[in-house]
Order: sequence, then structure tokens, then C-alpha cells
Amino acid sequence: MCGSVRAQPASDATQSASPTNVILLIPDGYGPASGTMARDYVRWWDGTASLALDSLHQGSVRTFAADSRITDSAASATAYSTGTKTNNGYVAVDTSDRPLGTLLEGVERQGMVTGLVATSRLTHATPAAFSAHTPDRGEENEIAAQQITKSIEVLLGGGRRHFLPGEDAASARSDEADLIAEAQDRGYQYVTSTRELASIDETPVLGLFADSHMAYEIDRPAGQPSLAAMTRRALDLLGDAENGFFLMVEASRVDHAGHANDAAAHLHDILAFNEAVETALDFAETDGETLVVSVSDHETGGLSLGRSLDGQGEYRWEPSVLDQISASHGVIQDSLSQALETSTKPDSAVVASVIDHFTAIDNLSPTEQSRLLETLDAPYTFSTELGAIIGKRAVIGWTTDGHTAVDVNLYAYGPGRSLFTGNRDNTAVGQALAHLLEVDLLTVTDSLRSKGHPQTE
Amino acid sequence: MCGSVRAQPASDATQSASPTNVILLIPDGYGPASGTMARDYVRWWDGTASLALDSLHQGSVRTFAADSRITDSAASATAYSTGTKTNNGYVAVDTSDRPLGTLLEGVERQGMVTGLVATSRLTHATPAAFSAHTPDRGEENEIAAQQITKSIEVLLGGGRRHFLPGEDAASARSDEADLIAEAQDRGYQYVTSTRELASIDETPVLGLFADSHMAYEIDRPAGQPSLAAMTRRALDLLGDAENGFFLMVEASRVDHAGHANDAAAHLHDILAFNEAVETALDFAETDGETLVVSVSDHETGGLSLGRSLDGQGEYRWEPSVLDQISASHGVIQDSLSQALETSTKPDSAVVASVIDHFTAIDNLSPTEQSRLLETLDAPYTFSTELGAIIGKRAVIGWTTDGHTAVDVNLYAYGPGRSLFTGNRDNTAVGQALAHLLEVDLLTVTDSLRSKGHPQTE
Repeated sequence: MCGSVRAQPASDATQSASPTNVILLIPDGYGPASGTMARDYVRWWDGTASLALDSLHQGSVRTFAADSRITDSAASATAYSTGTKTNNGYVAVDTSDRPLGTLLEGVERQGMVTGLVATSRLTHATPAAFSAHTPDRGEENEIAAQQITKSIEVLLGGGRRHFLPGEDAASARSDEADLIAEAQDRGYQYVTSTRELASIDETPVLGLFADSHMAYEIDRPAGQPSLAAMTRRALDLLGDAENGFFLMVEASRVDHAGHANDAAAHLHDILAFNEAVETALDFAETDGETLVVSVSDHETGGLSLGRSLDGQGEYRWEPSVLDQISASHGVIQDSLSQALETSTKPDSAVVASVIDHFTAIDNLSPTEQSRLLETLDAPYTFSTELGAIIGKRAVIGWTTDGHTAVDVNLYAYGPGRSLFTGNRDNTAVGQALAHLLEVDLLTVTDSLRSKGHPQTE
Repeated sequence: MCGSVRAQPASDATQSASPTNVILLIPDGYGPASGTMARDYVRWWDGTASLALDSLHQGSVRTFAADSRITDSAASATAYSTGTKTNNGYVAVDTSDRPLGTLLEGVERQGMVTGLVATSRLTHATPAAFSAHTPDRGEENEIAAQQITKSIEVLLGGGRRHFLPGEDAASARSDEADLIAEAQDRGYQYVTSTRELASIDETPVLGLFADSHMAYEIDRPAGQPSLAAMTRRALDLLGDAENGFFLMVEASRVDHAGHANDAAAHLHDILAFNEAVETALDFAETDGETLVVSVSDHETGGLSLGRSLDGQGEYRWEPSVLDQISASHGVIQDSLSQALETSTKPDSAVVASVIDHFTAIDNLSPTEQSRLLETLDAPYTFSTELGAIIGKRAVIGWTTDGHTAVDVNLYAYGPGRSLFTGNRDNTAVGQALAHLLEVDLLTVTDSLRSKGHPQTE
């Protein structure tokens, strides 16, 4: 299920040399417990001892934002993309709302090719922080408009609704701008399915595989490519660029599953990320000139493996409980709503049956049944109630439906990896990448501001 | 409050060379969130950016036991002391109850000098796993009897009750063995206070500073030395040994505070550990031949920094709340009991007043008051109730009064440090230390078994 231990290239020279290519892998909302959970699961499943990143663990990152001890994805991604601390919600702008040049913009000016891959909407905070500037991460229509002007060779993810013109029923735009047509005018090929993505053999490409976020891995239809498939395709398209490439790959929905306290969705998106990591490391191992860095932006959910039951700490947790779950909380919630509308049985029997169907939990207490029924129309509350029900059986705990401050793990492979050891600030990661890629971020920033970038005052 | 960034010795040779001395620093029950908590606190306090270990973070350790996904301290310390997985509760014996040779026993045979320093009873699981053999960590009287026969030059910690003869009112022994007298017959000087410890200038020394565990740092009387003071004294006594030394220093009560969900005691024992780390690193930096490795044995409490309040995740946590707390939960509980016995005021007024006095929390709800009064005679329940009250104000969460499975951080400094990178099994840490110290653990094990060690069947 998972890969072998990676031997690092041996010499000091390799450690500190400059890479030709950089792949930055961001599992959003992946805390220290997320990794242990996935490893314990694969060890239980088939005895696999390690995850792909394990042997590359070199340090950790402190993630706080300029205005909060607990960061959001926008502020932390801005630290990685620009080397600068900013406020929560800010996308590649400083705390005075002024644009900050990004790594991606910098390397594009130097003739490198670039790619952004995400399982969220492409306009969501993390990919946005590499490719757009706004003090409001919610301005996804504006972010989309900026993204298609940045000469990014590979754009793959969800978020079609921010690119479609307002007249389209699936659009979230209030204007009639047709960003897909505009991208095509700029030379982009536009694809919307796994099959279409496979047929592409040149850049630039814009792949939008869902109106909003792509599906959780646990729910993913075949028409949507996996994160590993998108990563492989991006490397096929960028991998032999003369001047090198910069590719950011985000396992975006690891975070969403944490917000929902959905352990099974969290787990399966981590396993999908693990496959994308294997893909990147296979490329880097063959290539020899590629630095792979992986770091999360923050932890989500306050996940722990182990909890008190009836006031007593249990020295166990049960991966087998998660293995029985076949859908995300959202699918379960929708199915329950439908079943309640159509069934003639009592509500308690319907909820018991639906939960048993999707989770193999056949012993819901009356209180648990009531809580699920009471919260059925409240998206977050239903999912955290279901998360608590599953957590009791799996003997795992969550403390929040938001983020936490805990440091996240830092992994690196290949030339330049020696800059990614120890406990570092998240801005140091962005600064180290800029150093290795010889990007002068201040110059990029100055250029954005002098050009009157949309977000310049 | 905390130290500067440590520059690692530069050359590859230093990374992989063999050290003359090894200092193993174990903060028991210190998870990834523990480090972030302490760093966020010192940053809030005076702007200190880093903890002493931060720049030495090189990897992580998976901690599971042979018989459980969640380890206890005995099984994990046995992994570090013997390089072998065993069951929870087992102290340097294998899963068939047979003794396993330890690093400490091995280096003693090679003419090195050794030390064990802990803030728990010296007979508690972690120091025991280096110096005794039993399948029952609860057999602390037996552990004490073994410990004084191992030629360990420096033994400093709590646990006097297991060394005193049964006739002594403070003893926990059922026999009349006077292990302190026996130790003195073997040449040990015996000390019981900070002042006496300072007067010692040769080994062997047995320092027992409390009947049971030493005090939490937050409650520590001046008569008990700090962990840093014990570490400094141990290094004074061992540091110029001709054939090198092995010193294990445990910040034992970081774990106990986690069990109690006592965030302030956890924090202050971590800060005390941080000072001991500084002491060890100062020695190693001057010495140049000392490897310092720091690793916890497991996480305790499922601590997270950030939690939902009223069903909504908060993007903040408040170190200032912890800063207001002046005693451990145990001291608060005892004070409350005494106050209830002596006061003529209503119980609710007494609990409000005592909690305000020790925590500056002046807004206990009626429910919170009742819960504290109801659980007053239940040590763990009172403590976790108070932990929940403080956690709501500090915006931090706990999921258990036991341990969790999350990987713990691995730090190293000095010659040989290259063996402590990546994510490793806890047994790999023990094996790497044995390799660097040229200890053949199998030979030590064989010797123990052929001699009919107490625990040999």
C-alpha cells in the first residue's frame, strides 16, 4: 500500500546544492496525529511499516499568523509562497493589504514553468496564495480572474463555478465574465474529466473537475482524477522543461475532513496524498535535480489517537472502525435526508439503518440517534456529531471544528534539503525556497506594486 | 527565558562520528503540542522565539508497544534502553518476561560511568527500564533493590519510600531491607536536599529528594533541586570520566501533568526541562565529544491548542490564562478540601474563592462549582474537571487522561546525530545508541540470563 524507505542522496553537496526543479507538497490541515493515524492504519491493513514521507522527516514548522496564534490556510500559504507573515484571510498581501510577490510569479519571470494542483477549488486559499493577491480569501471570483493571467502552465483542481459566466446555472459569478473562454484565448486547453486530462500532451492546461471542491477520496467518482493522477500528469507536462519547474500540489481536503471531524475522509485523503508523494519522489529519484519539500500549513481538528471513555483513558485506538466506513459525512447526511423523506419507517429506524449501511455501526444509542436527527439540517453540527459517534468507537478524539496551533512536520528530499531541518517559522520555508530558486521576492513585489496590481491601493 | 539557536557542528564526519559521551533527555509524555505550547508561552511572555531544542529537531519516533497501539512509559523506555519492543508495563524484559540487557548495563561493563536523573520516583518506569528488570512496573521495591546493585555513579530523583526500611513511617516497603544503608555500604553518599547535593564532589551518589515523586516545578520547594540543577550536578560529577559517560535525564512529571490535564503544571515542567536541555547543550558544546539526544516516550492527554467553544472552533489560544495559575491541581484540591473543612461560608463561596486564589478565574459557573465539589474526593476526576474549566478559558483541549499514539519529536546534537533523523521506530533509537556506544546488547542480555538475574525464570 505504501512505499519503501527512501535513501537520501549521500553527499553534503547534494544536501546544499541548488535544485533545478521544486515540488512543494502541502497536505492542508495535516497534523502530527494525521501521519500516525495513516501509518497505524496501513500497518493494521497489511503490515506496511512506513508512509512515503517518513524517512524524509527532518524538522517542523511553527505556523502562527501575524494576527493570531492559530493560522488559517491563507496566512500560512502566504508564508510559504512569499516568505512573509500576514493576517488570517489574507492571500499574498501584507498586513497593510499590499500585494506580495510570490515564488510562482518569481520563477515564471525567470523562464521556469509552473503548476498548481489542488483537490479544493483552485481559487481556495492555498493555491490562491501562489497566484493571486487579495486581503479577502472569499473573493474567489477575483482570484480566478487573476489566476488565468499568470502564465501558469498547469492548473488542475476544482472550482469551475468561479470560472463560468454568471448566466451558467453552475456559476458562482455575478458578472458575465467567461474565464474559461478567456483562458482558451490565452492558449489554455480546458479539460473537465480524468479521460480528457489523460489526452493532453502540451501546456498550458486548465483542468476544472468539479463545480466546487473535488470529491473526498472516499467518495471520488472515476470521472475525477486522483491527486496522484493529477500530480503525475503535471510532472509529465512540466518535467522536461529546459529551465526547470515549480509545482505546488495540495491535498486540500485533508483539512476539510478535519473541520468536519470526519476521520475516515481524513484518512483516505491522506492515503491519496501518500500516493501523490510517491509519484513526486519517483520523479525526483529518477531526475536527481528535483527538491521535494512537504509541509502542512496547520493542524485541523485537534485530532488525537486515544481518548477517555467513561472518564478513563484507553490505551488503544481502532483503525478497523475507520475501515468499515464507506462514505464521507456529507454523503451520509444527504442519504439520511433522502431516506427520511421516502421511508415509511420510524425516523429512529431510518437513522439506524442508514448509519449501519455507511459505517457498520449497528449500536447507536437513542441519544445518538436523536442528536443526528436534530442536527440533520446543520452541516457542521451533523458532521461533528457523527464524528463523535465514530470517535467513541475508534477511540480517537477531536477538540475543535477549527484549526489548532500545533507545529506541523517538515519533510525534504533532494538537492537543497539541508535548508529544511530543525523547527522553523513558516516564513523561513518560503524564504529558503526563494533562495534555492534564486528568486528575489522583493523585486517581484516591487514590480507588482508599480504595475498597479488589482490589489494595490 | 530560553536559549539561542544552536549551530550544529558542520562536517559530515561529526554527524556520523562516535561520541565519547551520551546524554539522553526524555521529557515523558511530551507531545508535539507540548512544544508549541511552551514556545507560544515564552513568545507571549518576553518575545523569546525558540526553545532550546528547536534548532535540533531532526525527525520523529513511532512509539507503539508490542501489545498495544498506545504505549506506556515502561514499554517505550525499554525500547530506548534495550532496542527491543515489549509489552506495556514491562521493564527491560521481553514479551516472555526474560530480562533484556540495557545500554546502561552495557556501558558500565565497558568502564564508562553512568547517571540516572528523574523528577519522578527513581523506581518509576523510565529510569527503571535502564537499571532493573521486571514484567511489572508496579514492583518498585524490587526495582529499587536492583538499582543499587548496578554500579550507577549518579542516581538523583524521588522515591525514597522504596529505599527506606518498612519500619520507617515514610516507607512503602513491606520488608525491613534498608536500601539506603545498603547503598552506603556499596560506597554511595546519600543526600536528600538541594544543599546536600551541592556539597557532593565525588561518586557514587544517591540523591532521594522526596518520598514519592518530586514536586511539580510549579509547586517546587527550594529544598528540592530543579531538573536543571540535578543535570548540572550530574555533569559535574560524570563529565570528566576517562572512558566517557552515559546520562539519562527524565522530565518525568510532564507526563503526570498531562494525565491530570493540568496545563500549567505541564507547561512549567516543560520550561524546567528546557533549562535542563540548555545545561546539557552547554556541556556538549564545550566538550565537543558529547551526543545529546532528546525524545519523548509518548504523548499524554491528547493536548491541542485551540478548541471549539459553544460548537464553534476558535482560532486563538490564551497563554495568559496559564500564566495566572500558581499551583498544580493537586495543591488546589488539597487547599480546597482544607478550606471547606475550616470555613463557615457556603461551599459555593469557598470553591469560588479558592479557585480564584490559585487560578485568577473569578467566573466559575454554578455547574462548574458543583462539579468541583462533587469530584473533590476523586483525585483524577477533580483534576480533569479543573483541567476542563481552565481549558475553556485558555482555549485548549484534552481528549484523555491517558496516553495517545501520536508520534513524538526526535532531536539530536553532536557526533553521531545523523542516526537520529527521519521517522523511526522507538527501538531504532535504542539500537542507534547501542551502535554508537559500541554496546552489544545481546551479550549483555546473555550475561544477565546466565547469571540468573532476579527476573530470569
